[in-house]
Amino acid sequence: MNFVSLLKHTKILSKLNVCYTRSICGLFEDRTPPVVDTDTKVTVVGSGKVAAACAMSLLVQNISDNVVLLDNKNANRLNGEVLDMQHGSLFFSSQVRGTTDYKETANSKICILSIGCKGAHTKQEVIDLAQKNIDGFKKILPQILTFSPNIILLIISNPVDIMTYVAWKISSLPINKIIGIGTTLDSARFSQQISHKLGIPPRNCQAYIIGGHNLYPVPVWSSISLVGDRLIELNPHVGTDQDKEKWHEVYEAAINSPKQITEGKGNTCWAKGLAAAAIVKSIFQNTRDIYTVTTNLKNLHGISYDVFLSLPCVLNACGIHKVVIQQLNDKEKEQLLKCAEKNKKVADCIKICG
Amino acid sequence: MNFVSLLKHTKILSKLNVCYTRSICGLFEDRTPPVVDTDTKVTVVGSGKVAAACAMSLLVQNISDNVVLLDNKNANRLNGEVLDMQHGSLFFSSQVRGTTDYKETANSKICILSIGCKGAHTKQEVIDLAQKNIDGFKKILPQILTFSPNIILLIISNPVDIMTYVAWKISSLPINKIIGIGTTLDSARFSQQISHKLGIPPRNCQAYIIGGHNLYPVPVWSSISLVGDRLIELNPHVGTDQDKEKWHEVYEAAINSPKQITEGKGNTCWAKGLAAAAIVKSIFQNTRDIYTVTTNLKNLHGISYDVFLSLPCVLNACGIHKVVIQQLNDKEKEQLLKCAEKNKKVADCIKICG
Amino acid sequence: MNFVSLLKHTKILSKLNVCYTRSICGLFEDRTPPVVDTDTKVTVVGSGKVAAACAMSLLVQNISDNVVLLDNKNANRLNGEVLDMQHGSLFFSSQVRGTTDYKETANSKICILSIGCKGAHTKQEVIDLAQKNIDGFKKILPQILTFSPNIILLIISNPVDIMTYVAWKISSLPINKIIGIGTTLDSARFSQQISHKLGIPPRNCQAYIIGGHNLYPVPVWSSISLVGDRLIELNPHVGTDQDKEKWHEVYEAAINSPKQITEGKGNTCWAKGLAAAAIVKSIFQNTRDIYTVTTNLKNLHGISYDVFLSLPCVLNACGIHKVVIQQLNDKEKEQLLKCAEKNKKVADCIKICG
Amino acid sequence: MNFVSLLKHTKILSKLNVCYTRSICGLFEDRTPPVVDTDTKVTVVGSGKVAAACAMSLLVQNISDNVVLLDNKNANRLNGEVLDMQHGSLFFSSQVRGTTDYKETANSKICILSIGCKGAHTKQEVIDLAQKNIDGFKKILPQILTFSPNIILLIISNPVDIMTYVAWKISSLPINKIIGIGTTLDSARFSQQISHKLGIPPRNCQAYIIGGHNLYPVPVWSSISLVGDRLIELNPHVGTDQDKEKWHEVYEAAINSPKQITEGKGNTCWAKGLAAAAIVKSIFQNTRDIYTVTTNLKNLHGISYDVFLSLPCVLNACGIHKVVIQQLNDKEKEQLLKCAEKNKKVADCIKICG
Repeated sequence: MNFVSLLKHTKILSKLNVCYTRSICGLFEDRTPPVVDTDTKVTVVGSGKVAAACAMSLLVQNISDNVVLLDNKNANRLNGEVLDMQHGSLFFSSQVRGTTDYKETANSKICILSIGCKGAHTKQEVIDLAQKNIDGFKKILPQILTFSPNIILLIISNPVDIMTYVAWKISSLPINKIIGIGTTLDSARFSQQISHKLGIPPRNCQAYIIGGHNLYPVPVWSSISLVGDRLIELNPHVGTDQDKEKWHEVYEAAINSPKQITEGKGNTCWAKGLAAAAIVKSIFQNTRDIYTVTTNLKNLHGISYDVFLSLPCVLNACGIHKVVIQQLNDKEKEQLLKCAEKNKKVADCIKICG
Repeated sequence: MNFVSLLKHTKILSKLNVCYTRSICGLFEDRTPPVVDTDTKVTVVGSGKVAAACAMSLLVQNISDNVVLLDNKNANRLNGEVLDMQHGSLFFSSQVRGTTDYKETANSKICILSIGCKGAHTKQEVIDLAQKNIDGFKKILPQILTFSPNIILLIISNPVDIMTYVAWKISSLPINKIIGIGTTLDSARFSQQISHKLGIPPRNCQAYIIGGHNLYPVPVWSSISLVGDRLIELNPHVGTDQDKEKWHEVYEAAINSPKQITEGKGNTCWAKGLAAAAIVKSIFQNTRDIYTVTTNLKNLHGISYDVFLSLPCVLNACGIHKVVIQQLNDKEKEQLLKCAEKNKKVADCIKICG
Repeated sequence: MNFVSLLKHTKILSKLNVCYTRSICGLFEDRTPPVVDTDTKVTVVGSGKVAAACAMSLLVQNISDNVVLLDNKNANRLNGEVLDMQHGSLFFSSQVRGTTDYKETANSKICILSIGCKGAHTKQEVIDLAQKNIDGFKKILPQILTFSPNIILLIISNPVDIMTYVAWKISSLPINKIIGIGTTLDSARFSQQISHKLGIPPRNCQAYIIGGHNLYPVPVWSSISLVGDRLIELNPHVGTDQDKEKWHEVYEAAINSPKQITEGKGNTCWAKGLAAAAIVKSIFQNTRDIYTVTTNLKNLHGISYDVFLSLPCVLNACGIHKVVIQQLNDKEKEQLLKCAEKNKKVADCIKICG
Repeated sequence: MNFVSLLKHTKILSKLNVCYTRSICGLFEDRTPPVVDTDTKVTVVGSGKVAAACAMSLLVQNISDNVVLLDNKNANRLNGEVLDMQHGSLFFSSQVRGTTDYKETANSKICILSIGCKGAHTKQEVIDLAQKNIDGFKKILPQILTFSPNIILLIISNPVDIMTYVAWKISSLPINKIIGIGTTLDSARFSQQISHKLGIPPRNCQAYIIGGHNLYPVPVWSSISLVGDRLIELNPHVGTDQDKEKWHEVYEAAINSPKQITEGKGNTCWAKGLAAAAIVKSIFQNTRDIYTVTTNLKNLHGISYDVFLSLPCVLNACGIHKVVIQQLNDKEKEQLLKCAEKNKKVADCIKICG
C-alpha cells in the first residue's frame, strides 16, 4: 500500500482548507466525514487589524474551534492574515480559514462584524462612516443570514451604537441576538485605570461606563465598588471638580486613550479583539458574565423609544440574557436620558432603507 | 424596590439547581430564559470515585459547561459529591448538578457510563461483573436515549470492551457514537513509562497499546516513536527477553500498576477521569486527537466478525472519525487476532437479551 | 548505536522519579541536567483526600509544574495516589512525585499543610484535634524549613485559624508568608449560594465571610455587592429575622453544607483543593487576587492582640500583600471582636511548646 | 476616612506602571511591597509587529505574568502598543509595561530580541541586515546583561542563525542560554501542511525542518512520523521528484509561504509570536517540549566547528536541555553539512567586533 491509493480516494470538500481522505487499505479508515460546521463556528467579517485581533483572540484562547474570516474586498490581505494564523496552528487546536464566499460561513453560531472600525470625531464624520457601514451591512447581512439564519451578531463596526440599531433593523433578529460591543472596552479601561491607581487587578474593581460608546458615555461613579466597598462612600466628591484626589482624571484617561493609541500606532486592536473574544466566550460557554454591551433600551430607565446604548448585561448561550438595572443617581439618570436623545437624533439622520 | 417583588416573580425551573428571576422594576430585566441544555452538556452516570474524577476533570478544565451526575441508587453520596463540587464553583465557570431523574439529563451531547468500574481478574469475575453491568445498562440506556436520542456514549464500565459492545447492541446507535475508554489509559501509562526512562514528556513519545483493556492487551513495539526515530531501530530486541535494556519491564509496569494503585488507595480514578475528559474534549472541540479507544474492529486487520477492541482512533465532533490502520508486524498482528478471538469468546458467554 | 550504550550513561538522580540520560552518540546530547527545583515547586504534606484534591487541582490547572507529596506515615496510600496521578501525565504537563524523605522537598516555594483536615465540633474535639496537629507540625515544619528556608506556608489543617497561629509560632516566618485557608471556602460557598439565588455566576457577586472558620464566622451582609449595587440597599432587612426574602437561609446553607457533604460522602475535598490551588496561583502568578484567608489581625479593626482570623487579603508573589479593611457596620464589628476573643481563648488553651 | 488620606501615603514606585498605596486607616493595610520582578518576567526588545505579537501571545496565554516592552527608538509607537494591551487587562491576569529605560528590565528571566525581524533575500541583503542588527545587539545586550546577568536570550532577529551566533559571542552566556527561534516555525509550517493533507492536527504529525532558517533548510523526510508510522515507508519516493503524490509541494509551500504572507499583509507576525511564546512556556514551565531551535552544532553530526543552526532540542528551565541526534539518512546528513558550510561562510563575512 502507498499513498497513491490513498490520494485516489481523496475528495476536496472545500477549496480552501478541508481535505477528506478515504482509503480502504490505507493509513486511516474513515467512519465519519470531517466536521466543518461545529458548535463554536464563528465568522469574522473583515480582514483589518481588528478582525485579525478578534480571530487571534478566539484561536489562542481556544474559544472557537472554527474561525472563518470573510472579506471579498481584500482577498490578498485576507490570504496573508489567514496563512500567518494557520502557520501557528501547531500552537493552538482550532481551525481557521479565509474565504470570499458566504457559503463557507454556513451554520456559524456567531458573526463578528468588524468592517469600518476606525473612530469618527465630528458629527458629519460619524454620519458619513455610519452611511458607509450601512451600505456594507446591507450587502453583508442578508448573505450571512441566508447561510446561518439562527446566528448571533456581534457588532464592532463604528459608530457602534448606530450600527447595532442598523443590524437589528436589517436582520429582524430577536433583540437578544443583536449585541454591540458598545462601552465594553470603555468600562474595561475605566476598571483598569481605577484598579491601577489602587494596586489591585481590574477584575476586583466593579466600574461601569454606560450609554454611548461614541456619543455621551456615562460613568456610573455611584456604583464603583472595591471588595464590596463603594468608592463614593470613601470619597463623596468622586468624579466631580471638587474631588482633591482627581478621580475624574481616571475617567478622562479611559475615554481619551484610544486617541493616544491611534497617534502612537495608527489603530486600536488588541483590547477590542480581547473584549470581542470575551463576549463570544460568554455565549459559547453560557457563563452569564456581565459586560456593558449595546442593546435596545426601550422601556428601561424611563426611555420610551427604540435607542441602542450600553448597559451592563448578563450574557449566556442565547446572547443577551438579562439587562442589569443599576440604581443610578439623579445625575447619572439625567446623563443617560440626554445620551439617549442625542443618539436618537443621530439615528434619525441615518438612511437605512432605499 | 426590594427583593420581595423580585422573588414574587421567581419561577423554579428545576428542583435542583436553576433559578429563574424576573422583575420588571428589579435588578434585572430578563430577555431570555436560563439555558440549561447547552452544546457541551455531559451526563455522568454514577457517583463513585471514577464518576467524580470524570466530573471534576471536565469542570476544572472547562471542557463541559454543564455537567449532570445521575445516580438513583446512592442519592446521598451523589448529593455529597455534587455539593462539594458546587462549593468550588467560584473557581471554575461551569455548572454542575446532581439528579436521580433522567429528565434532567435531557439533550446531553455525551453520556459517560461509569458504573461498575472496578477491575475483575478471573474469567468468572469478569463474566459476573459484565452481567451485573449489563443489567445496569439495560435500565439506564433506554432512559438516556429517550431524553437525548443523538447522544454519544463513552463507556468506562468494566469489562470495558464487552460493555462497549453491549452499549452498541442495546442502543442501536451508529458505530461512531459508541466509544469505549479501552486502552486509552494503558497507552498513556506506556508512554509515561517510556518517556520517563528517557527524561522527556509523554506527549513527545508515540507509544500505543491496542487490543483488549482487560483481556490480551497488545503493545505495538514496532511503532514506538521518539521525535520521529523508532525505538525498534535503536534497539532491535526491544520488548523481547533478549533485550538487555529491559524495555519489557516498562510494559509490565504499565499493565500491572493499576493493581499497585488499588492496593495503595483502594481504587484508580485520577487518570481515568483525565482520560475520559480528554476524549470528551476531542469531541466538543473537534480536535481530531488520537486515542486508543474501543470500537468495532470488523473488517480491520483481517478480523471478519463484530468484536470491540482498541485501536488508535481520530476523534472529532462526530465521535470516532477515523480508525488508524498501523503497520503492525507479524507478531503484533497475530497477538491482535488472538486477542479478538479471546474477546469474542467472552462476548459469546454474555447474555444481553432476555 | 543502540540503547545499551545510552543506558550505560544513565545516572539515577532520584530514587523516585527523575532519570538522567547521557549519550555521546545516542539519541540525545545533554547540555544541562534535569531541573527538579523549579520556580513553582509545591510540597503537599499529607496523602489524604484533601492532599490529593490539592495536588490534582494544581496539576490539572497547570499552576505548579512540580508537585511533591510527602507522607511518611502512609507510604502505601501515598504511592497509590501518586501513581494514579502520574498515569494521567499524558494529559497535563507538570511533574508529580511522592516521597517519605524531606530532602525531596528541597527548594519548594510553597508548602501546603493538609494533615488532619477533618472538622471538629465540640470545644474539646477542637482542642484535641489542635493538639494532635500541633504535634504533627512540630515534627514537620522544622524539616520543611531546613530544606526550603524561604517557603510560604498554606495551612489547611484544622482548626485552621489555630493551626495558622501555631505555624507562625513554630516557623518564625514573616507574617506575609503564613496563610491559612481560613474562610476562603466559606466565602466561596456564600457567593455561590447568593449568586445561585439570583441566576448569576459567583464571580459576579462580592460576598465575604470573615472571622473564624471554625469558631464564629462573620457574614459581612453590609458589603454584599452585585454589579456595584448593594444587596442591603435593595433589602434593608437582609440577613435578619425580619427579612421576608430569607437571605439568612443562604448563609446557613453556606455554613452548614460541609456537614451535609460529610454525611453524604464521608469528607469534603474538591472545593478545598480548588481553593488551595487558587491561592497558590495568586502567589505564583502574582495576580493580586483577593481571598478571605487567615492572617494576624493585631492592630486591625480595633484588635490589640495576636489572633489569627480571616479578612479579605490581596495575595501576590510575597504571599499576603495587603489586608483589606472593609467598612464594617457596628454589628459586624462587634461580631468580629467577639470572634477574636473566642479564638484567643481557644489559642490560650493550646500547648505549643514543651 | 476618605481617599485623600489614602493618597497622601501613596508612593509612585515606577514612572510607568506601579502604584504603591499605603494607608493606616484606609482601605488597605500593606504588608509587603508590590512585586515587579517576578519569576516569569520577560523583556521584549522591539515594538514592531513581531514584538507585539510575542507580547500578546505571552499575555493572553498567561505564560508570563510580567512583560516589559523596551524600545528607545520608537517611544510613541511603543506607548501606543502598550496602552492598547493594557486596556485589555480586564481579560488576562498578567501585567504589561513599556519603557525606554533598561533599568525597568531588571531581573528578567528571558529576553526576546525582536528587532529587525524582516526577511532578507540576496546574500548582500542578508549581510547588510546582519550588520545592522549586530550594531543593535552591541548596544542592547550589554545593557540587558547588566540588569539581568542570568537571563536566557531568545533571538528572533534575522538572519536568525547568524544573530544567535552573534548573541553568543557578545554575551558570553553559556550555550544553553542562547536560543534562536531558528526553524521552529518552518517545522510548524511543515507539520501543518502535512497534517492538513491528511486531515489530522499538526501535533499528531512529527515532521522537522533542520539546518538554516534562512540559508539551506533541510527537511528530514526520513523521520516524518504519523501515529508511529513513517511516511517514507508508506511512500518510498516521498520528497523526491519521482513522488507521484507530490509531497515535495508540501515542503515548498512551507518554505515559500512567508513570502506569500508578506505580499498579502506586509509582514509575518502571528505564527512567530506563538512560536516564541511556546518556547518561553517550555522554559518557564520546565515542560521539556521539543522544538527545532538554533544552537551550536559543534561536535554534532560530524560538524567540527562553531556554527549555529537548528536541530530538535528539548527545552527546560535551563533553556536548551538536550539536543536530539536524529538518525539522518545519507542525503540529509550531506545537506546538513553543506548547510553548515554555507552558514559558516556567511558568519565569516560578518564583523562583530571593532
